[in-house]
Amino acid sequence: MGDVGHGTVSAVTDTPTARLLLTCPDRTGLVAKVADFVWKLNGNIVHADQHTDSEAGVFFQRVEFSLQDVNVGRNELAQRFAQLADECSMEWKLSFSDEVPRVAIFVSKFGHCLYDLLARWRAGQLACDIVAVISNWPDHADTANHFGVPYHEMPVSAQTRAVQEQAVLRLLSELDVDLVVLARYMQILGEALINAFRSRIINIHHSFLPAFKGGHPYAQAYDRGVKLIGATAHYATEDLDEGPIIAQGVTAVSHRDSVGDLVLKGRDLETVVLARAVRAHLAGRVLVYGHKTVVFD
Amino acid sequence: MGDVGHGTVSAVTDTPTARLLLTCPDRTGLVAKVADFVWKLNGNIVHADQHTDSEAGVFFQRVEFSLQDVNVGRNELAQRFAQLADECSMEWKLSFSDEVPRVAIFVSKFGHCLYDLLARWRAGQLACDIVAVISNWPDHADTANHFGVPYHEMPVSAQTRAVQEQAVLRLLSELDVDLVVLARYMQILGEALINAFRSRIINIHHSFLPAFKGGHPYAQAYDRGVKLIGATAHYATEDLDEGPIIAQGVTAVSHRDSVGDLVLKGRDLETVVLARAVRAHLAGRVLVYGHKTVVFD
Amino acid sequence: MGDVGHGTVSAVTDTPTARLLLTCPDRTGLVAKVADFVWKLNGNIVHADQHTDSEAGVFFQRVEFSLQDVNVGRNELAQRFAQLADECSMEWKLSFSDEVPRVAIFVSKFGHCLYDLLARWRAGQLACDIVAVISNWPDHADTANHFGVPYHEMPVSAQTRAVQEQAVLRLLSELDVDLVVLARYMQILGEALINAFRSRIINIHHSFLPAFKGGHPYAQAYDRGVKLIGATAHYATEDLDEGPIIAQGVTAVSHRDSVGDLVLKGRDLETVVLARAVRAHLAGRVLVYGHKTVVFD
Amino acid sequence: MGDVGHGTVSAVTDTPTARLLLTCPDRTGLVAKVADFVWKLNGNIVHADQHTDSEAGVFFQRVEFSLQDVNVGRNELAQRFAQLADECSMEWKLSFSDEVPRVAIFVSKFGHCLYDLLARWRAGQLACDIVAVISNWPDHADTANHFGVPYHEMPVSAQTRAVQEQAVLRLLSELDVDLVVLARYMQILGEALINAFRSRIINIHHSFLPAFKGGHPYAQAYDRGVKLIGATAHYATEDLDEGPIIAQGVTAVSHRDSVGDLVLKGRDLETVVLARAVRAHLAGRVLVYGHKTVVFD
Repeated sequence: MGDVGHGTVSAVTDTPTARLLLTCPDRTGLVAKVADFVWKLNGNIVHADQHTDSEAGVFFQRVEFSLQDVNVGRNELAQRFAQLADECSMEWKLSFSDEVPRVAIFVSKFGHCLYDLLARWRAGQLACDIVAVISNWPDHADTANHFGVPYHEMPVSAQTRAVQEQAVLRLLSELDVDLVVLARYMQILGEALINAFRSRIINIHHSFLPAFKGGHPYAQAYDRGVKLIGATAHYATEDLDEGPIIAQGVTAVSHRDSVGDLVLKGRDLETVVLARAVRAHLAGRVLVYGHKTVVFD
Repeated sequence: MGDVGHGTVSAVTDTPTARLLLTCPDRTGLVAKVADFVWKLNGNIVHADQHTDSEAGVFFQRVEFSLQDVNVGRNELAQRFAQLADECSMEWKLSFSDEVPRVAIFVSKFGHCLYDLLARWRAGQLACDIVAVISNWPDHADTANHFGVPYHEMPVSAQTRAVQEQAVLRLLSELDVDLVVLARYMQILGEALINAFRSRIINIHHSFLPAFKGGHPYAQAYDRGVKLIGATAHYATEDLDEGPIIAQGVTAVSHRDSVGDLVLKGRDLETVVLARAVRAHLAGRVLVYGHKTVVFD
Repeated sequence: MGDVGHGTVSAVTDTPTARLLLTCPDRTGLVAKVADFVWKLNGNIVHADQHTDSEAGVFFQRVEFSLQDVNVGRNELAQRFAQLADECSMEWKLSFSDEVPRVAIFVSKFGHCLYDLLARWRAGQLACDIVAVISNWPDHADTANHFGVPYHEMPVSAQTRAVQEQAVLRLLSELDVDLVVLARYMQILGEALINAFRSRIINIHHSFLPAFKGGHPYAQAYDRGVKLIGATAHYATEDLDEGPIIAQGVTAVSHRDSVGDLVLKGRDLETVVLARAVRAHLAGRVLVYGHKTVVFD
Repeated sequence: MGDVGHGTVSAVTDTPTARLLLTCPDRTGLVAKVADFVWKLNGNIVHADQHTDSEAGVFFQRVEFSLQDVNVGRNELAQRFAQLADECSMEWKLSFSDEVPRVAIFVSKFGHCLYDLLARWRAGQLACDIVAVISNWPDHADTANHFGVPYHEMPVSAQTRAVQEQAVLRLLSELDVDLVVLARYMQILGEALINAFRSRIINIHHSFLPAFKGGHPYAQAYDRGVKLIGATAHYATEDLDEGPIIAQGVTAVSHRDSVGDLVLKGRDLETVVLARAVRAHLAGRVLVYGHKTVVFD
């Protein structure tokens, strides 16, 4: 009865593709220009999606094309595109499906999101290398070890915060980390880290933002008597819980549910919503635009 | 291919039932006391549901029992129960399935919830009499007329608000209205009306409360870049959008959706969520408890 | 508090757009060819979406472009595209946002989908002209009349089926109907009608297809004890309930729900799912591919 | 920011409760009889829920009461209830919240449901002892080991099936297993096992039953072009995929999703739906009734 498949990850083992994410002021002919650029390289567009915010006059596009018959190297490709981008005042990002991003997962006491990400990763469902688990507690060393990922216990106190922040930054730099995932990490990040990983830190907040910002969202939800609870994955910014939203989910609750029940139901949401956001980011499908995101399907 | 059925409304035409909604401090034997009370009347419990908030030590119950073989009249029944209620310090409400509640619908410019409720009502799906449509605009007179419901145009301005409020109260009193439904009514209700219809005014707010309170929730949702939008049906209280929540729903949105698209998607939510709340209220399934509700299934 | 907006319909009143739906064998440069075609016309692509079924080697695309500065007439435009289409062995369809499709709604006894479509239409949410309501019963004449749509009572019996079918076809032809919507129409359509309106008849089936095909799906669902019920909008084909699926929805049910309750809950699903499918079709976003659909967002 | 809570599991450490699940022909006074029974024991009902299938004339009830002040032992309690049950022709089951059920998990190649259950269990969210992982493959020995659960590799071939089945039965008996969970176990169970664990084997099927029974449901779903995929947790019976359904879930898919993507999306459904069913069973909230279930909230 076994369906066999590895979903979006399969791209890693197939012919590599290039993925262009770009945004610029809208004008006539942008789609044609980009398509023409790819054509002239002998690239075959396997997926392209664009969106125009007609009110704001802004154009967004994601183009993924096969590198199989492309007649130039990757650096050359990037340089050529830079010219087009310049002409059109584009902000852009180029990535390649066979360049596997390096991910560090941060966690505090609650380990369900950590577990879930590691299990998906081992099952071949996350197109990345998980190179470190970082925690302010020792609790999850065993788990990280089971999955063969180095565990870094880095406790934080009021006194050590500034120093520890520097140590974390050094570690991320040494490990050449591309993406930080806050899998229920309960410490506030410093400005230096936020800036160094702008749009590259994904946090899971256990409420349907903007409802129930800040601490104890399930207790807040219980007190308000809502009939649905939610979870929100977003990029971390200086303003806690205000960063660009990548994915959200909700589930039904009732008067029967205690705060503890909400916590329990919420965990399923948190894992699924966080994993969805991480997968979208890893596939180069998320474009940050002001304090919002464009998530291409 | 026609399934035939009228759902919860069928109770109206079957043997009438009594519905007790009650809440009191929790203590041993409450379920037994109430069950015993019904048994001694020769009533048959067709549905009973209880809930204990063990933290707060509060007991909630809904009991519905057939009146077929009940050997006392309705007044006598109520008087007898009052004794038991007294003993246990209960707050309680008794209603009968064949006493059809009288409903007034308030509406402003947007008619989709009005339409939806009237169409459900005509299809025999709302166990009530809709006795009036009240609006601060003339727009929906035709619609009300089509469904055979009197339309009362009662415009409101800063000058006339106080006087009009009195007129509305008189009208509701003359019509012997049991429940007011605010089907996208865009005027703030005065204190007198709120007080006279405490826990008997259902409003639909077009967001997932407590997110996006106040005006223009779809525009707020668009600006924040959420990935889900919602609707909330709640009892109206002095604090706008803070009343006890009865029902909520959400639907997925994306960067492709303009504010106009959110409005469009939200309408389907609003009609469904409002109708669900109205049906629960009409079936005597909603118990208000502080600023929260217990909604028995 | 009124958000103002008309969603997808707004396109009708703005600058008209052309919408190309096309499919062909996949090959390098297709996106570029089409984009280049539009550019040379001086069209501005406002939305483009493509999909490649890499297993089957088939390419699908929807391109919508503004006609504001387009320098040729519509016939000329179509002729020019036909050449490109020929080169690439495309099947294609060209429509214009200001050419309002003409719709006939078929209905039997249950009027909730009819009502819902008419109410949406009046509210400016369906980009079409509803030119006829056709029914084998007299029940909904009043409703059609209220919305200003001619009502055609066309009863069907075993004896009259063949003749009536011809009459229906003539009527649809006289009215120049583009799309037929079966809004809980409980008669089987003849082959001639199916053929004449291939991929232009949308039916709503009250189950989550392929579960519970055929008659009495809610009774079937009740008997099987499922915990979710569904509705499916699909194009009608010779094989009942086997046509290409456009949209589906589900809602939770429990042991408490009688068949009548399922019917009631299902109605909300049916209206929403059918309306979603009709809107997608009217916006030229549905491409039929074998017995499946590609529904562009 | 940490909400603390352990949901339904907390009952294990609090005052123990007794849980009665019962069904019998409907008649007047059943609720009163049972409530009276509990009262006379000096038990306090903390949760009671009943349902009457009025068409079939069958009564269902779940009553949970605190044992804190109960004045008789558990055996005595059961004997006394047996008398009442006899009088009313009840089928019934009595369990105690502090008697922890013993669970064996069966798994084949796909380990996501196994992982998920073990991780929930370690996090204190499953009120059971997981005493064995049984598999026809060696793949998950490490995982079981990490969670401290004995792993039994029991390969099955056409030749060894009958013998292995006996070995499995012996093992389950030696381990005193109460519940078997088929967490994507791809072997057909023999009649002896089905009979020995009637209504105590929970299977997860990776489709929205009754759609896509049998093998390769994701491939079937892909071929049919559905817009939602599902998962179903049910008790195993002789008729594969026909057993009483406990829980179901769905998630949206589109033409963009390959079979591999459906597999990936489906995994999240499978884990969540299976865990929900297992939790309901462990809490004594599932009553099997013919080939359907009553799942009390």
